[in-house]
Amino acid sequence: MPQLNEFTYSSRFSDSIPIVGSAFTKNQQDAIPLSFGFPAPETFPIQPIIDATTYSLMTDGDRALQYTGGDGKKKIAQWIVDRSKLRSIETSAENVLVTTGSMQAIDLAVRTLTDENDEVWIEAPTFFGAVRIFQLAGVRLRSFPVDQNGVDVDAIEKELIDATNNHQPLPKMIYVMPNYHNPTGVNLSLERRKKLAALAYRYNFFILEDDAYVDLNFSNIYVPAIYHYAPERVIYLSTFSKLIAPSIRMGWAIGNDSVIQKMHLLKVDGTTSAFVQEIVANVLEKMNVETHISSITQLYRERCEAMISAVLNYFGDEVTFVVPKGGFFLWLTFPLGVNTSHLVQACVDKGVNFIAGEYFYEGCLEFNHLRLCFTFCDEKKIDEGIKKIAEVYFANKNLQLFQEAE
Amino acid sequence: MPQLNEFTYSSRFSDSIPIVGSAFTKNQQDAIPLSFGFPAPETFPIQPIIDATTYSLMTDGDRALQYTGGDGKKKIAQWIVDRSKLRSIETSAENVLVTTGSMQAIDLAVRTLTDENDEVWIEAPTFFGAVRIFQLAGVRLRSFPVDQNGVDVDAIEKELIDATNNHQPLPKMIYVMPNYHNPTGVNLSLERRKKLAALAYRYNFFILEDDAYVDLNFSNIYVPAIYHYAPERVIYLSTFSKLIAPSIRMGWAIGNDSVIQKMHLLKVDGTTSAFVQEIVANVLEKMNVETHISSITQLYRERCEAMISAVLNYFGDEVTFVVPKGGFFLWLTFPLGVNTSHLVQACVDKGVNFIAGEYFYEGCLEFNHLRLCFTFCDEKKIDEGIKKIAEVYFANKNLQLFQEAE
Repeated sequence: MPQLNEFTYSSRFSDSIPIVGSAFTKNQQDAIPLSFGFPAPETFPIQPIIDATTYSLMTDGDRALQYTGGDGKKKIAQWIVDRSKLRSIETSAENVLVTTGSMQAIDLAVRTLTDENDEVWIEAPTFFGAVRIFQLAGVRLRSFPVDQNGVDVDAIEKELIDATNNHQPLPKMIYVMPNYHNPTGVNLSLERRKKLAALAYRYNFFILEDDAYVDLNFSNIYVPAIYHYAPERVIYLSTFSKLIAPSIRMGWAIGNDSVIQKMHLLKVDGTTSAFVQEIVANVLEKMNVETHISSITQLYRERCEAMISAVLNYFGDEVTFVVPKGGFFLWLTFPLGVNTSHLVQACVDKGVNFIAGEYFYEGCLEFNHLRLCFTFCDEKKIDEGIKKIAEVYFANKNLQLFQEAE
Repeated sequence: MPQLNEFTYSSRFSDSIPIVGSAFTKNQQDAIPLSFGFPAPETFPIQPIIDATTYSLMTDGDRALQYTGGDGKKKIAQWIVDRSKLRSIETSAENVLVTTGSMQAIDLAVRTLTDENDEVWIEAPTFFGAVRIFQLAGVRLRSFPVDQNGVDVDAIEKELIDATNNHQPLPKMIYVMPNYHNPTGVNLSLERRKKLAALAYRYNFFILEDDAYVDLNFSNIYVPAIYHYAPERVIYLSTFSKLIAPSIRMGWAIGNDSVIQKMHLLKVDGTTSAFVQEIVANVLEKMNVETHISSITQLYRERCEAMISAVLNYFGDEVTFVVPKGGFFLWLTFPLGVNTSHLVQACVDKGVNFIAGEYFYEGCLEFNHLRLCFTFCDEKKIDEGIKKIAEVYFANKNLQLFQEAE
């Protein structure tokens, strides 16, 4: 056997980029899962998917299973165009790119819009999956705080002015989740949407508008997307993961011709599964989508209310939170000095899990928050889980286990 | 409306990278399709897929539709491990990464192994889809000729020696298709496999072994993969596209721990559709895979023979080719001076298409070849298609339409 030299791997990406997921799934098999953002399996349209598969393959299997697929792709693009009107987005099928989940769309967008070392501005806190993609793309990140009205657009404007005056680089892209923000659950106010859109034109950046949770709103109110105010400067993303099921891996991007064309060029895994697209197109055709969404949001509203009751019941005034109007998450804020990462293991030992707040920050860490997902567990489990977390918290509070890490 | 500034897109990838596919699907709707590498739809296991979908969703739909999936992922990884033994590959499930088609695996591999401007060496001719991915990754390409025994490994060795002596950069990766090569249909000889493997150790590069067509061999003979001779220095790729169906978008990579871990890190679109993995796992469990493969290879052998007969019949001695022992493609070589790109439009006008040879070369263009796919059309269509191409060729030959482009 010849001698094995050391092979130096690419430095395109750093070894130090954490995969948050793997850190949280160890030894948590039997815990009440309040950590990950999983939809309730009760909402999966199992029979419609079976029927759609049978129908698609029986009537057009030769095309549905070929690289190029059948009519499903066109139907889905048109469905997305039609559905987007609810969000005040006027577009056409040519400006829709169906992707392998919206994670792929985030990756294609950042690699289309930026070179390495370009600036991308993000929210703090934000979705760690997106942060990981940005880090792999080698861009520089800067964070802006989120309050009950979404990301602080005035702070963004101030930084844009400062950067301009100081000849510092401006962002190529700003990543925001305007509806039922992950992890905080808040919505970006209409005023801030308009202002951010205007800034995008003035300072010549793109907005990556991640709208994964838009349909999961408890009161069926749709606010115009940022895209509506800056169609030339927004890449809008959404997904079927919450509406149909996550494992089908289907999301989409909407953008101007040039952006979509470039994202398409970078999408080297080929057309997003034409097999799945045939099935989804048929499900959307046969299923009453409005009724389906209503039943999902009703279930999630009840679970959200159950979680809030439990938090009030077991934590009292110890924590604060914004009441979510939709989405998946409740974001608890503890007194300053508490480090929720120190709670994780004790809670897992007790049989419940959550995600500690620090994982949602890049650069400007905060430790006194935690994210709970209210969609996956039933109300009884939710109550039980929150009770356990509170027990662990109050049992250890006086031991001062929660000092902020240096 | 604010003024719209010009936005400078990323220079991560060049606008000039051609998408060969799109160039060939225009105005070719009604043509006899001998161009793209499509499997015969007659081989799609339609009923097994319907049954598998129904079974998977009825028995374990809650998991099959969730992000994390059910038992399918494990079963598929184990199936790949077991099946790999036929190729003399000993591996374990942890070293298998299931990808969104093998195109994604090519992308993950090149981005794992290389930085921008690193050297990647390829075959000439080779699969243009892979070339496009390499170009998007920003690597430098160098081509080595393919003869009837596969890529010229002696030429590779000579270049490695020269590069070492001249302090020129060595390749980080060499991309080869050892079985039923696309587009030439040839196999890499055992001797060359061993030698290339030894060179990988000596000169410290990786081999990206793309084995998409391995199961489509007409005589059911499996030669050891290059991986067998250099397990630490090969990333081995294959796919379910030919075995089950392309639109399910499922391929895989096998590599050492470190490589697979890094590819996994770069795979930002999440777990390859757990929905599809459940279905495929169930199909593989219920279907007699050997019988299925036999029926595919028998069909393809007949079609390949029909194509060869037609070529001999209509072209006589005008073209040469290597008789494929499997795979999808027949590669015709015309006399020097013929430029097959000049035949394309006239053939489309006559109602038949193919892919001109130049698209399979990077850097060292050759124009006097063309690729025919024998799997997609039935024998009658194949005969008709070859007849049309020959008619166009001989009708125009004396008009000297086929001079090599300058």
